[in-house]
Amino acid sequence: MNENRDYGIELLQRLVRCDSVQGNESTVQNIVEKELLHLELTVDRFIPSEDTINHPAFCANRTDFTESPNIVGVLKGSGGGRSLILNGHVDVVPPGNREDWNEDPYSGQVKDGRVYGRGATDMKGGNTSMLLALKCLKELGITLKGDLIFESVVEEESGGTGTLATIQRGYRADAALIPEPTKMKVFPKQQGSMWFRVTITGRAAHGGTRYEGISALEKSVAIIQAIQNLEKLRNKRIKDPLYSNIPIPVPINIGKISGGDWPSSVPDLVTIEGRMGVIPGESMDDAKEEMTHALKDINDSWLKDHPVSLEWFGARWLPGEVAEDHPLVGIIGEHYSRMTGEELTIEASPWGTDGGLLNEVGKTPSIVFGPGETSVAHFANEYIAIDQMMLAAELFVHIIIDWCHQKSG
Amino acid sequence: MNENRDYGIELLQRLVRCDSVQGNESTVQNIVEKELLHLELTVDRFIPSEDTINHPAFCANRTDFTESPNIVGVLKGSGGGRSLILNGHVDVVPPGNREDWNEDPYSGQVKDGRVYGRGATDMKGGNTSMLLALKCLKELGITLKGDLIFESVVEEESGGTGTLATIQRGYRADAALIPEPTKMKVFPKQQGSMWFRVTITGRAAHGGTRYEGISALEKSVAIIQAIQNLEKLRNKRIKDPLYSNIPIPVPINIGKISGGDWPSSVPDLVTIEGRMGVIPGESMDDAKEEMTHALKDINDSWLKDHPVSLEWFGARWLPGEVAEDHPLVGIIGEHYSRMTGEELTIEASPWGTDGGLLNEVGKTPSIVFGPGETSVAHFANEYIAIDQMMLAAELFVHIIIDWCHQKSG
Repeated sequence: MNENRDYGIELLQRLVRCDSVQGNESTVQNIVEKELLHLELTVDRFIPSEDTINHPAFCANRTDFTESPNIVGVLKGSGGGRSLILNGHVDVVPPGNREDWNEDPYSGQVKDGRVYGRGATDMKGGNTSMLLALKCLKELGITLKGDLIFESVVEEESGGTGTLATIQRGYRADAALIPEPTKMKVFPKQQGSMWFRVTITGRAAHGGTRYEGISALEKSVAIIQAIQNLEKLRNKRIKDPLYSNIPIPVPINIGKISGGDWPSSVPDLVTIEGRMGVIPGESMDDAKEEMTHALKDINDSWLKDHPVSLEWFGARWLPGEVAEDHPLVGIIGEHYSRMTGEELTIEASPWGTDGGLLNEVGKTPSIVFGPGETSVAHFANEYIAIDQMMLAAELFVHIIIDWCHQKSG
Repeated sequence: MNENRDYGIELLQRLVRCDSVQGNESTVQNIVEKELLHLELTVDRFIPSEDTINHPAFCANRTDFTESPNIVGVLKGSGGGRSLILNGHVDVVPPGNREDWNEDPYSGQVKDGRVYGRGATDMKGGNTSMLLALKCLKELGITLKGDLIFESVVEEESGGTGTLATIQRGYRADAALIPEPTKMKVFPKQQGSMWFRVTITGRAAHGGTRYEGISALEKSVAIIQAIQNLEKLRNKRIKDPLYSNIPIPVPINIGKISGGDWPSSVPDLVTIEGRMGVIPGESMDDAKEEMTHALKDINDSWLKDHPVSLEWFGARWLPGEVAEDHPLVGIIGEHYSRMTGEELTIEASPWGTDGGLLNEVGKTPSIVFGPGETSVAHFANEYIAIDQMMLAAELFVHIIIDWCHQKSG
C-alpha cells in the first residue's frame, strides 16, 4: 500500500493547492475529472440548471455557477447489487486571516504525518480516500454488481446547490456515503442548520447624557440571553441516546456582532448573526417559529414596542437521519472493528452536510463517515492525518464491495 | 437688533457651510479672522507648536496641524479691569450617514426660526453669539477696562489641542466663558471624559460543536455587566446637589461593539469601545484605575486566565470646576433673570469641554454657558434656534461689560 500512500498524498496535495472557494471550483474539478477518466468511469460534467435554481430546497447567494461545475463519475454494475453514491464536496471555506497560518493556506505541506492546507480535512482528504478506493477496485480488477456513483460536488459550504443539482440530474442510489471529517465515527443522524440575523434598534444619544437614549447593545444582551435560554430548552427535549455524550447536542451559535459607530454615542443599531442547529426529524419551519417566539417573548417594554427583526439568510442545511441499524452502518462497523480492533462509534452529527438533501430530496439514505476532524475544519493550519486518510481508503474498498455485491431491497 | 439678527444668521450660515471637520478648519478660520480684523481686534493666527505636542495634556490622533490654525483676537483693555477669555471651537464632528439628513449637512438652511447644519449648535451658534457681542461693543463705542481675548480654536472634538495651544502661547485670563450648547444653563462643573477600548478573547470552534470553544461574545456580556455595575457604583458616590436632577450624573457609555467573522463559528475576539465620564475633582488616573479593577474583579475562570486588554485611546477631556458662587456666575444670573424673567439654571455638565484644559492647565476659571442643546449635537439635522443665539449675544454684551469693568482680585 506504500505506493498508494505516496499516490494519495500527492493527489491530496494537488487538490489542496487549488483555492476552490465558492465560485472558483473548476480547477480542482479538472483534476478530479481527469482522475475519474483515468479510472475509466463514465464522467458527467455539469453546472446546476435552472430547475435546480428554482427548486424549493435551493439556497445560495448566487445563481451563476459557470465556474462551479459538478463532476459525477459512474461505474456501472453488472446488475443485481445495491447502488451506492460516494459524495464529497470540493469547495472550501475562505482561509481567514493569513497571519494565523504557519504556511500558505494552500501549501499542501507534508509534516509530521499530516497534510496541511485549507480543505485538507474538510473534505479533500475524504475525497482522496474515495478516489484511492476506486483506484484499488480497478487494480484488483473487481466488477461490482451494483452501480457506484462518485459525486464531486460544489457549494456544500454555502447551502448544498451542488448536491441538489446531482439529485435533479437523476442521480439517486440505495445509499450514500459522505466522508466528511467525522474522525472515523458514523453519523447516521445529521443536525441541520440555518443562519439567522437579528437586528436590534435603540435610540441614539450623546454618551454624556446616555439616559436620553436607549442602548441597542443593552437590549442585545437580553436578546443573547433569550437565545441562550432557547438553546437550553431545545436541548433538554432531546432524549436520543446518540446525543448522550454531547454537551450541547444541537447548539445555537452566535457568531458575529456589530453595532454602534462612535465611542461616546449611544448605539442605536446592533446586528447579531448566528447559526441555529435543526434537530433531526424537526422541520426548518418549526425551528424558525420557535426562534421567532423566543425573541418576541422577552419581557422588555422597549423591545415590545420596537420588535427586533429576524432574518434567515445565507446558508442552510437540512437535517437528515437514517436508522442506526441501517445495513450500511453494519457493514462499516464490521470492517472497522476488524481493521482497528476497536468498536465503531455511532454518534449524531454536530453539523449539517449534503446528506440532508440526499435524504430528504434525493430519498437516498445517507451515512456520514470519514477521516479528519471538525476541530481543525474552517480554522487556520487545517490538516489531515495521512494514516487516517489511508485507513478510510482501505475501509471504503471493503465497504463498497460488500454493499454493492448484495441485492437491493 | 433686527439688522444684527440678519447679520448673525448670515454669519452663522457662512460658518456652517464650511465642513470644518478635523484637519479641515482653515477655511472657517479665514472667515473668523476677517471678522475679527474688521472688528479691529489684534489677530494672532498660529498652529499648535512642538511645545504643545510635547505637553503632558496633549491628546490627539495627529501631530500635523497645518490646515488647523487657531485664531485669537485681542481687544486690549484700558487697564484696571478683569480680563476675560471667550473660547469657542470651530471643528465639527463628521456628519455621519447623509441619508439621515433632510438637507445637505452643511446647508445652513433657515427654517422655522432655526439654522440647520452640522455645527450649528456645537458650536458655531455660540461662536456667532460672541462675534455679535463684539460687534455690538464696537458699535456702542465701549472701551473695556480689562482685556478681552476671543479664541477661535480647533480640535475640541478630538482632545483639545487647539485650546492647549492657546494656553502654551500665553493666553490666560481672570475667567473664561465657553458658549457650548448648554440650553442657556450655567455649567460651573464639567464632567471630564476619556475613551476606552476593551478587547476580549475567546477560543474559536465550529458552531455545531460550540462547546469546544469559548465565546468571546458570552464573555463580553460579563464585561458589559461589570461596566454597568461600575457606573452605578461611581454615581452612587456623587452627592453634589448640582447633579441631583440628572439620572446618571457621570455615565460610562459603551458606544461600539464588534466581534466574530462567521455566523457558524464561535467568535474568538470581541472589541468594545466606550466613553468613561470623569467626575469633577477626580483625577483621570484614578478613574482609569477603577475601571482596570472592575474588569479584573469579574468572577470568571476564563477571564482570570485570559484577562481582557484595556486601552485608553482617542479623545480625552479633563474635568473642571469653579465654585458655584463664582462672580462670573453671579453676573450671568443677574442679566439672565432681568432679560428672561426666569431664574438661571445651574447644573453640572454632562460632557467635557475645553474648559477642563483652561481650568487645569491654563489656571483660568471657566464657565460653560451658551445657546443650543446637546440633544441635537453630533446628530443628523442639527440646528440652533435663532432667538436663543440672539439672546445669548445680547447677554454676552452685558456680561463682558460687567466683568471687564471691575478690578481683578
